[in-house]
Amino acid sequence: MRTLVSELSGKVGQQVTLCGWVHRVRDLGKVSFVVLRDRSGSVQLVFDAKPDVTLESVIQAEGTACANVKAPGGVEVKVEKMEVLSAAASDLPFPVNQEPGKTSLEAILDNRMISVRNPAILSIFRVQSSILKGFAECMRKEEFTEIKTSKLIGTGTEGGTGLFAVEYFDTRVYLTQSPQLYKQVMIASGLERVFEIGPAYRAEKHDTPRHINEFVSLDVEMAFIDSEQELMDLETRILSTIFAEIRSTNQRDLEAWGATVPEPELCAKIPRVSHDEAKEIVSRETGKKVYEITPEAERSLCDWAQKTSGVEACFVYAYPRKSRPFYTFPAENNKTKAFDLLFRGLEVTSGGMRINQYDMLVENANTFGLDPAGLSDYLSIFRYGCPPHGGFAIGLERLTQKILGLSNVKEATLFPRDRKRVRP
Amino acid sequence: MRTLVSELSGKVGQQVTLCGWVHRVRDLGKVSFVVLRDRSGSVQLVFDAKPDVTLESVIQAEGTACANVKAPGGVEVKVEKMEVLSAAASDLPFPVNQEPGKTSLEAILDNRMISVRNPAILSIFRVQSSILKGFAECMRKEEFTEIKTSKLIGTGTEGGTGLFAVEYFDTRVYLTQSPQLYKQVMIASGLERVFEIGPAYRAEKHDTPRHINEFVSLDVEMAFIDSEQELMDLETRILSTIFAEIRSTNQRDLEAWGATVPEPELCAKIPRVSHDEAKEIVSRETGKKVYEITPEAERSLCDWAQKTSGVEACFVYAYPRKSRPFYTFPAENNKTKAFDLLFRGLEVTSGGMRINQYDMLVENANTFGLDPAGLSDYLSIFRYGCPPHGGFAIGLERLTQKILGLSNVKEATLFPRDRKRVRP
Repeated sequence: MRTLVSELSGKVGQQVTLCGWVHRVRDLGKVSFVVLRDRSGSVQLVFDAKPDVTLESVIQAEGTACANVKAPGGVEVKVEKMEVLSAAASDLPFPVNQEPGKTSLEAILDNRMISVRNPAILSIFRVQSSILKGFAECMRKEEFTEIKTSKLIGTGTEGGTGLFAVEYFDTRVYLTQSPQLYKQVMIASGLERVFEIGPAYRAEKHDTPRHINEFVSLDVEMAFIDSEQELMDLETRILSTIFAEIRSTNQRDLEAWGATVPEPELCAKIPRVSHDEAKEIVSRETGKKVYEITPEAERSLCDWAQKTSGVEACFVYAYPRKSRPFYTFPAENNKTKAFDLLFRGLEVTSGGMRINQYDMLVENANTFGLDPAGLSDYLSIFRYGCPPHGGFAIGLERLTQKILGLSNVKEATLFPRDRKRVRP
Repeated sequence: MRTLVSELSGKVGQQVTLCGWVHRVRDLGKVSFVVLRDRSGSVQLVFDAKPDVTLESVIQAEGTACANVKAPGGVEVKVEKMEVLSAAASDLPFPVNQEPGKTSLEAILDNRMISVRNPAILSIFRVQSSILKGFAECMRKEEFTEIKTSKLIGTGTEGGTGLFAVEYFDTRVYLTQSPQLYKQVMIASGLERVFEIGPAYRAEKHDTPRHINEFVSLDVEMAFIDSEQELMDLETRILSTIFAEIRSTNQRDLEAWGATVPEPELCAKIPRVSHDEAKEIVSRETGKKVYEITPEAERSLCDWAQKTSGVEACFVYAYPRKSRPFYTFPAENNKTKAFDLLFRGLEVTSGGMRINQYDMLVENANTFGLDPAGLSDYLSIFRYGCPPHGGFAIGLERLTQKILGLSNVKEATLFPRDRKRVRP
């Protein structure tokens, strides 16, 4: 019967069997120490003679759990019997047991199959799993239905640019940029409240620390709402559920990155400012008049929000029409009922009220230079009764990145795809 | 403040505001009835004069909730004020308020944007949402970490056939057939237990009621296990969680299809037979000697399982080597440690122990005619220590189909993709 490292403190004096990876080997002549790593943590194994193992080999060790104040965690295991379950070659291409800060992002990603074993790097993906859990749980609690829609589409809803083409039997289809169209079908279906977790693609030639060409989109759409404020209320509840989940599950992972998560209760205090107000705030805070919300301005707004609310996050609404997709519900003065959420200096969410009236949507498509004929599937949703609605999408990798304070979104992506990287 | 249809029984005698879709209109001259549908159910609205609404229009109706034993559900609402929130055109392309059995699958899928509003059709996707919930909850309870891996790969792990090509900037990549490679990276990473919910693609020219070219794969991988029996144990627990979830949440949806879900406790009794035994059983049951487990044999095995265990499901293990992927752990007599789960006559899961030893894997790749050079990313997992492990994948749409007794897997797919169908 296997014992996990995390269970050892309750087994002092007992015979235990551990399984895991050889994280570190230290030979002091008379005695040798091996740090064994399993999914729950790591522990020091004590051998009388240096065991014949390489780093990263998977072993099974039997012995006695002993209290030792000098051992990390206060318990070590004196090994009586060891078996190598899978021997690792000695030319390890990545230093699994060192601080990842000493290694370049290129080296981490080139050797992803092995670098992900590094405990700090691996902790990123435990946090990501908690985000997925918190998001889905909050959605279900609020009576949202989970949907799974096709990632292969005939044409893009937001115009044809930025799409990856797929050779599909005798025709060509595209990888979807967002499940927007399908979310709207499903709120109009009568489900009213839907969420989807799935991949999305952008064939854009960005090369920045905040862009990847394939990402996971946490998508939400909700019917029978009156304003985008209700969407921000909903996102506030989602964030506070996610933060609470991470606080209760991922302390060890947060510590690996010296990261802290906002108090869940503070999420309700995240300021909501209009796009115009946002520019004024940034101009005032930086002493430099701004005319657009640039990435730099986003950082400045989040600094301001931290001072006023205790959370480094800010909702910005009433974006100008030209900066949002054609299906965005318009507001007075050429503004829209759209919003973004900025978190720790980065846009992590984009959303808003959508147009639910057929005529207005056709008119807007024309204004945006889109051909309504190419949108016929999409438009049919609105031809046959569609309630007022809105929604948003949270970028999973960006949220992970910002929660842990990582410098590049690719660090928060297990197998990132960018312009040059298509493997492993 | 909106009242949901499901809340009406507690509001008799009170003023209520309902929002939803016009499901049916019946004009009796002095009085008119409108059936209003919302996400929680449907209710009869009573109007003094025929309201000016078309089917599927979205309305908001205010009035008094009244008990009426003749009304479906025992409550109706006498409407005093009605507003059309979104008017539907009168040329509805699909009969939303009729039994879907009267409509062809082609018509249902061609008009998917509207056909999904049909209550029985929509109920399929509420059941699917419960499957997703039950699966994820069971996984998390058993300490599995949720992962999200790339769907764009350089080459296929299981050979290069059956892959859709993607034009990716200046190069070509492929849509993944399964996250197999990445699941194995992640169990070797130290997470030990991972699950993933994501799309998978097969560029196969099948045209059968059980094939689609894009499907959602519920993927599981688990380290430090001794045999495929532990995987079947795990799948049994997953199934019983899913069945329990559907029983508690989806009674109305099951009724729409006259479907029943197996007793969760009976899952532990699902028989496990070897591939050879399976052939014997089918031969005996059908009185016709069989040499392969054909789709017909799968149905016959499930009938037999129903008689012996009370669940129409059967695990089949010890498949011949030639019928399983090269990474499948071999067993004596040219068999493997692989298994399938057949449920109500259909394979819904494929899985098994995987090879975790580098040399054995290289040898097997050669035996299967694969070039180890093309597998270098994959093989590196095993070069540096990989625990004994195995896993499986459940097809979400097939499981949904079989739970509800649908005749075609495409009915259980929101926006199915097949050889000819790439929209809507």
